[in-house]
Amino acid sequence: MSGNTFGKLFCVTSFGESHGPAIGCVVDGCPPGLILSEADIQPDLDRRKPGTSRHVTQRKEADQVRILSGVYEGATTGTPIALLIENTDQRSYDYDKIKDVFRPNHADYAYIQKYGRRDPRGGGRSSARETAVRVAAGAIAKKFLRERLGTLVRGYSAQIGPLVLDFMDWDTVEMNSFFCPDPSRIEELDAYLTQLRRDGDSCGARVNVVASGMPAGIGEPVFDRLDADLAHALMGINAVKGVEIGEGFGVIARRGSTHRDEMRPTGFLSNHSGGVAGGISTGQDILCSIALKPTSSITIPGKTIDAEGQAADIRTTGRHDPCVGLRATPIAEAMVALVLIDHWLRNRGQCGDVKPGTPAIAAEGVAGEVPSEMSAPLPDDG
Amino acid sequence: MSGNTFGKLFCVTSFGESHGPAIGCVVDGCPPGLILSEADIQPDLDRRKPGTSRHVTQRKEADQVRILSGVYEGATTGTPIALLIENTDQRSYDYDKIKDVFRPNHADYAYIQKYGRRDPRGGGRSSARETAVRVAAGAIAKKFLRERLGTLVRGYSAQIGPLVLDFMDWDTVEMNSFFCPDPSRIEELDAYLTQLRRDGDSCGARVNVVASGMPAGIGEPVFDRLDADLAHALMGINAVKGVEIGEGFGVIARRGSTHRDEMRPTGFLSNHSGGVAGGISTGQDILCSIALKPTSSITIPGKTIDAEGQAADIRTTGRHDPCVGLRATPIAEAMVALVLIDHWLRNRGQCGDVKPGTPAIAAEGVAGEVPSEMSAPLPDDG
Amino acid sequence: MSGNTFGKLFCVTSFGESHGPAIGCVVDGCPPGLILSEADIQPDLDRRKPGTSRHVTQRKEADQVRILSGVYEGATTGTPIALLIENTDQRSYDYDKIKDVFRPNHADYAYIQKYGRRDPRGGGRSSARETAVRVAAGAIAKKFLRERLGTLVRGYSAQIGPLVLDFMDWDTVEMNSFFCPDPSRIEELDAYLTQLRRDGDSCGARVNVVASGMPAGIGEPVFDRLDADLAHALMGINAVKGVEIGEGFGVIARRGSTHRDEMRPTGFLSNHSGGVAGGISTGQDILCSIALKPTSSITIPGKTIDAEGQAADIRTTGRHDPCVGLRATPIAEAMVALVLIDHWLRNRGQCGDVKPGTPAIAAEGVAGEVPSEMSAPLPDDG
Amino acid sequence: MSGNTFGKLFCVTSFGESHGPAIGCVVDGCPPGLILSEADIQPDLDRRKPGTSRHVTQRKEADQVRILSGVYEGATTGTPIALLIENTDQRSYDYDKIKDVFRPNHADYAYIQKYGRRDPRGGGRSSARETAVRVAAGAIAKKFLRERLGTLVRGYSAQIGPLVLDFMDWDTVEMNSFFCPDPSRIEELDAYLTQLRRDGDSCGARVNVVASGMPAGIGEPVFDRLDADLAHALMGINAVKGVEIGEGFGVIARRGSTHRDEMRPTGFLSNHSGGVAGGISTGQDILCSIALKPTSSITIPGKTIDAEGQAADIRTTGRHDPCVGLRATPIAEAMVALVLIDHWLRNRGQCGDVKPGTPAIAAEGVAGEVPSEMSAPLPDDG
Repeated sequence: MSGNTFGKLFCVTSFGESHGPAIGCVVDGCPPGLILSEADIQPDLDRRKPGTSRHVTQRKEADQVRILSGVYEGATTGTPIALLIENTDQRSYDYDKIKDVFRPNHADYAYIQKYGRRDPRGGGRSSARETAVRVAAGAIAKKFLRERLGTLVRGYSAQIGPLVLDFMDWDTVEMNSFFCPDPSRIEELDAYLTQLRRDGDSCGARVNVVASGMPAGIGEPVFDRLDADLAHALMGINAVKGVEIGEGFGVIARRGSTHRDEMRPTGFLSNHSGGVAGGISTGQDILCSIALKPTSSITIPGKTIDAEGQAADIRTTGRHDPCVGLRATPIAEAMVALVLIDHWLRNRGQCGDVKPGTPAIAAEGVAGEVPSEMSAPLPDDG
Repeated sequence: MSGNTFGKLFCVTSFGESHGPAIGCVVDGCPPGLILSEADIQPDLDRRKPGTSRHVTQRKEADQVRILSGVYEGATTGTPIALLIENTDQRSYDYDKIKDVFRPNHADYAYIQKYGRRDPRGGGRSSARETAVRVAAGAIAKKFLRERLGTLVRGYSAQIGPLVLDFMDWDTVEMNSFFCPDPSRIEELDAYLTQLRRDGDSCGARVNVVASGMPAGIGEPVFDRLDADLAHALMGINAVKGVEIGEGFGVIARRGSTHRDEMRPTGFLSNHSGGVAGGISTGQDILCSIALKPTSSITIPGKTIDAEGQAADIRTTGRHDPCVGLRATPIAEAMVALVLIDHWLRNRGQCGDVKPGTPAIAAEGVAGEVPSEMSAPLPDDG
Repeated sequence: MSGNTFGKLFCVTSFGESHGPAIGCVVDGCPPGLILSEADIQPDLDRRKPGTSRHVTQRKEADQVRILSGVYEGATTGTPIALLIENTDQRSYDYDKIKDVFRPNHADYAYIQKYGRRDPRGGGRSSARETAVRVAAGAIAKKFLRERLGTLVRGYSAQIGPLVLDFMDWDTVEMNSFFCPDPSRIEELDAYLTQLRRDGDSCGARVNVVASGMPAGIGEPVFDRLDADLAHALMGINAVKGVEIGEGFGVIARRGSTHRDEMRPTGFLSNHSGGVAGGISTGQDILCSIALKPTSSITIPGKTIDAEGQAADIRTTGRHDPCVGLRATPIAEAMVALVLIDHWLRNRGQCGDVKPGTPAIAAEGVAGEVPSEMSAPLPDDG
Repeated sequence: MSGNTFGKLFCVTSFGESHGPAIGCVVDGCPPGLILSEADIQPDLDRRKPGTSRHVTQRKEADQVRILSGVYEGATTGTPIALLIENTDQRSYDYDKIKDVFRPNHADYAYIQKYGRRDPRGGGRSSARETAVRVAAGAIAKKFLRERLGTLVRGYSAQIGPLVLDFMDWDTVEMNSFFCPDPSRIEELDAYLTQLRRDGDSCGARVNVVASGMPAGIGEPVFDRLDADLAHALMGINAVKGVEIGEGFGVIARRGSTHRDEMRPTGFLSNHSGGVAGGISTGQDILCSIALKPTSSITIPGKTIDAEGQAADIRTTGRHDPCVGLRATPIAEAMVALVLIDHWLRNRGQCGDVKPGTPAIAAEGVAGEVPSEMSAPLPDDG
């Protein structure tokens, strides 16, 4: 397995290069009977797609998805669903000048060490373009989770470069192209990114994802914990260098007496653990947070080597995002949704007839007992 | 797959409960011809084992490992290696009083929701005791990596509760039971943990792992990136709530112009990315950092519910670590080693005869060009 | 994956060599709540075990199984079930003389070509002894299938060397050590095998397995068809060289007009296809038949080479079965049961809430319409 | 895993329905640097394609394959290779009349029991059309095996209905549309099939596949034996009901003294075992034989039920093969090739640096010592 298939029961096999004829994927294991058409998938693709604002790459891709199989008379049949997205705006000439030079901190050099060759057009397989197929597959997972389980998977930009953004409400997130959750910060964000582009530089970002309404009891106890598989899914997104569940790195300095999520018949009194205990969901909101690095494709010249191993200087032009995190929210949502549906199906396989004697309690307890830091979907410190 | 098997080519299948007759694992896919005996495995088990200091659980377990198969005349044969560790000190009575009460933030409640039942003795399958078999399997992986590839996988405690510990040298790490890398801080650590135990409370920890000498070109480009699989492996350790590769969350506020790891024929000029680019190793040190939460098994009473869903109070006595991070270093090393050997074998399977035209460059470049923050194996901010 | 793990959701990982300290396996993915103890497993092990008649190897093994994990208070918990069988009668000296000579048609030479080394004691990993752990794991699967689904998995010897044995009834099968289904043939069988042993020779066998009461709709339509996975399971048994489903090779000369299994609301009118259509169960009896080769471990001298590649002659003494098929019935049952439970769980994962509009029809139709060749569980020609 | 992905390291994920817009697959894990274009794949597709003679379905499909990814400048890059074949001749109206009636011995009824719904157009996913993508993926495997290992995978029709066809030579096989290996029988075959079509009936077939030049030491010793995986691959082809390796069912009545394949430094003296011992290749020809059932889609009316479970009669018109075995040879070759490349890569992963002390011996021994039945690639009795 060369790592292009994701999931155990709900499996996504991805293919395609940035400047090949098409990208796409095969979704295997989707339960039959889910109402599905391209219209269910396209909106998430549009949320991710390039060219939505002047701060993201100006590549013009329709990102129009076609369902090639697995759907009959408007519903899934249980057989593989192939999704195809044609590449239409492949300006390969942009990349000719860097064909024989390794962009620092890009996959170029590592690909040559592994494969002995690479498709240099637009980064080939390592292009962020590959994430479009994850978003498409994730849209199917999100629909199933929403319609069958009442589970919502939603994300937002929690930090762009130095600008920490507080969560206000979900509607705001969808009303700006930065996935910014605070309407009062959008102007500032815009100014910051404008200056960044003028500097020819890039910045990092933090994206938070919240899955609410996930039933308790989903996950596995040892290697494939729900949080471990979330970490695998999220760290597998281009540019991600850190993953947190619940309080994440905030737990280091915390004491057990304040961290443990106490319980009452009316519900949990806090959610420091981010909805997962012992690798299994608790029924609380599942809280994930990721760090995305600044892209290395910037116009400030940098030191590197060429294909012969000789010293070279590089200045990446072409069409690039100054902050890849700006388009990462739909991708992170998709990866979380893929993990959740896979574990839900895995659990149904092994434990489909389990009736726990203890009733599930509410995600949140009685008023006044929920710690204030949980009033936002994720604590500020992640 | 219920998540008890780890790896694709070098596969570890774990079994066992804290208070059952034994724990153990089956290691499948180990290359033949590796010199191996129990003496190669026991030292890492001894590093992890309970009772090594007064700050870890006083359970007395010999943690003596037996090889049941896969080794003949002192070398691996290529067939499955079964490892068995008998449980000898099972004081189940400690747990009777909490049998019908869910310890907050433990796996108890989630297990019941998933399985409808659980083995309550010592946490059963969710006990940290399970990690002993990971350490045992990891010792085989570490030996292969060291002897065949010259790769060293080593970890240390980078933070215990509020105490941030600077890396000094590897010898120090092994000379104290805290895996503390700075000899000047050991007394302070001891005092802090003594007070913590007196308070009946617990604290979190950060553990860093460095894999040096890993060849370039190992990993996969999309879902199963080397860093994604490291995140899966590390987040799958009990109590871990955050994983970073290289600079981790430090990348958010950083600019691309300072983050990208520039290259010269003499080597890389920095290692902000932690030895992985595009999911594939670069030949630099692979840098991982994890956050472990404070254990919830503390003597300060807490609010919870019982098996009938009624309100209850709990005060965990029994034998527990006030800081589970204290014993996590060998476990984290093991998980990293398991990922590295698995990906090295996977790469040999697909790309075993690749001869890259571009020569591999050194992990570090010429003197004076390596950023100061890399003088320690991991930057302070993780 | 080095092929020692079987199954996708109900996973068996096997380990152990013929003359190592123990053999065993880990069963992962068993649903929780199944009543289970060693007493549920031992009877099948006793059916397979050596020394039951003078026609099978006289090695004396208690084949006593121990459950090491995954069972608490008499029921499965959903966590891995480790099974251990210690080797007690390891007369390795029998094998010293053949240590440096490859037994023809044995795994010896192939192992050396693959691994460069092997454990020669009793065939090491390639010994039929390994099949004991399959029988143990299969006993768990059989219990689940029987108790939860009402599915019975039963086998018998359909041919021993030239002696074709007609199916009479299941009780007979269990009342002789040959798994012979016809009481009138036992004396003849005994005489044949006695002569075979005197000749220092061996013979092949056919074993049939019938799974009755399996629900319709279980299996997968393309690569992992139910019959494909049965073929994988059965061809993976030592010495098996052929697998048939339903009429098997009998279909070649048949015409579609007589082969197709017609249907009526009262049930199917025949079962030529052996209970599988398009890779998915039909609700009819699932009919499998396998061919086992004569063992090559005979006392008639044979031509071979030694470890240096030089010509050598070999005469295998030691303890061997003149017909390995004599003990194959419980093994074949186990492998069929493992496939069925795995596919049943896989189906529940993906299709657990499907309610087919068309009611399932009976496995057999109205009297008089069932073709006569189906009065025996399998047609004579397999 | 819903069974649409085949292989562990060389993985083929298939998708598509008979009358959807397209069928195709993703080939993941192909080694980089293999020269590849559509021209390498098309010839095998043309060998399988409908409409090549008047005895196969007259559906007109160009079966034109497009490579969508994974190939750059004429060679594989190591990333997933997506193959797409558009469906162009979808005469769905042929199937409308059978939409609500289950064709006996087809997948129709089983699909409804499993999924609760199905795509009835041309059999949907269960159509033999799906096998085109296996042929396409197999062509890549065959090219790798041929160019890198010198392994040839070739098949032929060994029996059509009652007509047993002796192997003469490989050139003959490719010079007629029946894959008949004996030029003297072609007229007879043509007459037989003509009569069969006039009768509105169908017949079964036997196809043999021989892989020559496969290195010794490839395979796995327990569950995933090379022959077990071959059985899985071959039984997973539509209509296959039996699989044999080497002598297959002929071993039952054979004695060990004549069956064992003796060895001399100059080579093996026979190949009864079909090139596999203990699950691992011996370096001899790998011999496989399969039985394909007569298709149930015939014009002779048959008894069945409809979607409401009521009795119905059916008479399949549409375009169908009277002998599906006529087009099965390229499919069987493809499946064998997929198993061989997968196991070769798996072996390189685990054992890539093994140097066996014993030299590999020749596939066949000195002249005069090879038993006569091996002069044909497969013994007559299969």
